Amino acid sequence: MLRAAAAADAGDRRVGDRVVGMSATTANMYRMVSIAEAQETVLKAISPLPVMSIGLMDAMGYILGKNVIAREPLPPFPASIKDGYAVVSSDGIGDYDVAFEALAGTAAGHLKAGTVAYITTGAPLPHGADAVVQIENTEKLPPGPEGQQRVRIVKPAKGPRDDVRALGSDIAAGEVVLAAGSLIGAAEIGLLATVGRATVKVRRKALVAVLSTGDELVEPDQDALGPGQIRDANRFMLAAAARSAGCNVVDLGIARDDPAQVEAKFQEALSTGVEVLLTSGGVSVGDRDFIKPILERQGTVHFGKVRMKPGKPLTFATINATASRSSSGQLVVFGLPGNPVSSIVTFNLVVLPALRAMAGWPEPRLRRVHARTQTDIKLDPERPEYHRVSLHWHRTGESAGELAAASTGGQISSRLLSMRSANALLELPAAQGVLPAGSIVSALLIDDLGSMPVPEGIPMIVPAL
Amino acid sequence: MLRAAAAADAGDRRVGDRVVGMSATTANMYRMVSIAEAQETVLKAISPLPVMSIGLMDAMGYILGKNVIAREPLPPFPASIKDGYAVVSSDGIGDYDVAFEALAGTAAGHLKAGTVAYITTGAPLPHGADAVVQIENTEKLPPGPEGQQRVRIVKPAKGPRDDVRALGSDIAAGEVVLAAGSLIGAAEIGLLATVGRATVKVRRKALVAVLSTGDELVEPDQDALGPGQIRDANRFMLAAAARSAGCNVVDLGIARDDPAQVEAKFQEALSTGVEVLLTSGGVSVGDRDFIKPILERQGTVHFGKVRMKPGKPLTFATINATASRSSSGQLVVFGLPGNPVSSIVTFNLVVLPALRAMAGWPEPRLRRVHARTQTDIKLDPERPEYHRVSLHWHRTGESAGELAAASTGGQISSRLLSMRSANALLELPAAQGVLPAGSIVSALLIDDLGSMPVPEGIPMIVPAL
Repeated sequence: MLRAAAAADAGDRRVGDRVVGMSATTANMYRMVSIAEAQETVLKAISPLPVMSIGLMDAMGYILGKNVIAREPLPPFPASIKDGYAVVSSDGIGDYDVAFEALAGTAAGHLKAGTVAYITTGAPLPHGADAVVQIENTEKLPPGPEGQQRVRIVKPAKGPRDDVRALGSDIAAGEVVLAAGSLIGAAEIGLLATVGRATVKVRRKALVAVLSTGDELVEPDQDALGPGQIRDANRFMLAAAARSAGCNVVDLGIARDDPAQVEAKFQEALSTGVEVLLTSGGVSVGDRDFIKPILERQGTVHFGKVRMKPGKPLTFATINATASRSSSGQLVVFGLPGNPVSSIVTFNLVVLPALRAMAGWPEPRLRRVHARTQTDIKLDPERPEYHRVSLHWHRTGESAGELAAASTGGQISSRLLSMRSANALLELPAAQGVLPAGSIVSALLIDDLGSMPVPEGIPMIVPAL
Repeated sequence: MLRAAAAADAGDRRVGDRVVGMSATTANMYRMVSIAEAQETVLKAISPLPVMSIGLMDAMGYILGKNVIAREPLPPFPASIKDGYAVVSSDGIGDYDVAFEALAGTAAGHLKAGTVAYITTGAPLPHGADAVVQIENTEKLPPGPEGQQRVRIVKPAKGPRDDVRALGSDIAAGEVVLAAGSLIGAAEIGLLATVGRATVKVRRKALVAVLSTGDELVEPDQDALGPGQIRDANRFMLAAAARSAGCNVVDLGIARDDPAQVEAKFQEALSTGVEVLLTSGGVSVGDRDFIKPILERQGTVHFGKVRMKPGKPLTFATINATASRSSSGQLVVFGLPGNPVSSIVTFNLVVLPALRAMAGWPEPRLRRVHARTQTDIKLDPERPEYHRVSLHWHRTGESAGELAAASTGGQISSRLLSMRSANALLELPAAQGVLPAGSIVSALLIDDLGSMPVPEGIPMIVPAL
């Protein structure tokens, strides 16, 4: 809570003194911004972090910092696509001596017309040969008079290049195989290995600190709750969410509702070189806000109130970190609301895009899809609402191929169960009345749909010709 | 390659001797199974791994091993939803003495009718009070004759329980907040913290080893390629994919095409306690297969050929690991094809569901959605094809709300670029001819759609009433 000393610090930005036993803070002076403006403000205030080198095996989930160009062609030689015989295609069907074996990992031999070479998949095509006949189109013959292996070509090559991968046909020398800004997944790791990048240049990810504030909070491992106490959930949830985004997380613990204690935690974040600080609790739209005065003293508060439900008290500030070890030269602070649903929803909508932008994502925002509502939903007349839903796929009937959005139930911002198995947030407009079941609305994906059921046997629909 | 010694080992399971200079292996004796049968065979042969305890902060991405039940209600006391005044709702509007402050983290006081208490969001409602009037509906008055704080209630509480969260209204005592089988994400971490689980019981994940085979392979950090050489991509790609699934990975390196060397690697996997071994290369549908004979000697080969494109040579075996330290008592071996696209596609379709099943996923298969094709696609007459596509969302026009599937280009199984930015595999049936653009087909998601573009401003469609 805000004690007298801190209130005095807030100085002449104070706007009132209505609260019994409390001094007012500056919370009320903040204009309520739209969620779009909030997102834009955040993305403008931050920059991508520096590029660093990382071992290939650890590059998963990072954004490539520089174009990667293939130095050599792939395959680096004309290669057989099949197990079979390398031939001169114009030789056609007939019985041939097998001159030699062309095996993977060996140099290409020299084939004379009128003979063939046994060849394995991926092996270099011998010089002189121009096609491969797969083994299924041949018959082994008894050895020749000098003991040489012989084979009958039953079905000839279709022509030059049959069953041959041309030099550079998969990747041309000089080709950009991965552009700066690419998100590195397993296939990209494979590509990088293929072109010989054992280390790669990627954007760093932010070092994130989490801090919970509140006199009522205790650690989850505290067995019995005292009077008025609840367990801290936000710190663990936000740390997990930040780690999911690939960030390392510094745990600053719980601060009491005491500005001096909170300020000490801020100093700890600054001296640790943290780039992003997530606080939860201590911001409000009323007069009990003691986070904003600290932020105003130490840096710039860019917004302190957002027209969204849940999440109205969301606060965003930057602190120039001359005294800090942060590589970005500033500490970015998100003051998240204390209600757990508000804190994880604002994390997804505003913090996650910021972490992605710092990590170099060209498009850091959440992915948006269409979904059809399954039940009537009461709208909020004043604020756009982010209604938590579980998406699944309609399989049959008129709605086949659509995403169906099932509400996760009561949406009060203290009820974390509304986030359980939620994989999307419906973007509901501020409006009077009820949105009827069956409406199509946009939804923001907040997980990888891993919890979505798997519909069996989706029927294929081919358009009439 | 298969040397004489190994061929002799294959013994009387040998089915032919057609290849010049080679002894045949058992590859041809395997019945070609469907992909559905392959998946079912794998899921039948494996079991979920044991349950273990893990710290809350590390539980992300695991499957909960036991139901988690709330011991206490949440909130554990009737709590204020707003900053304002705790009142006896029947007192109505009027001027009141502020008897005391009810702050978060303190025990509930006792309120007498005819007085009010200042209260903060989340603080326990005083005994005797039954509602909260938010501060916006009050006016501060000058202090009373004895210096007591006074307030005017301008707009009364709507009745008992107004702006009060009842005890247990978010979570009831005894409620199952998370069921066994739940995938733990950030919200679930928050729920676990809320109900006081600092450690949780989750299913272990498999320890996975990766091994590449092939005389042509060199490490990615080898600068110049010798004749016939290419760089190993599969091991890095498969390791990254397994780590993405949360598994720890043992790197067994590259084995030459030499059964003795491969067998030594198998022994290393067994003695390390590895549960899943992924080999790539060395399996084929022809006669150059030297992985299957080793698997046949050491365990049971469940299938050795799958009707799918790419990935036909996919092989699956189990080795009873009495001599192994594997907790599951067996080593599960997937012999993946050497072509990089084949290896990552078969990983997604068959290995990933197996890793998920071992980790306890109730539904381990890939998620299936509908998508509309953007180009004509030639079908394979003999094998169902998994065509790599990049999904994006149609925003406007007749197709608004549909997923559009853009082919990633040439689908030859050596061309890893066809996996770059692919986020789904179309399930194309084996059939003659061409599937026309505009067809709706089912697609399996292989990433989190993080690479999908974000369509702006999807229009809302409300059904006519």
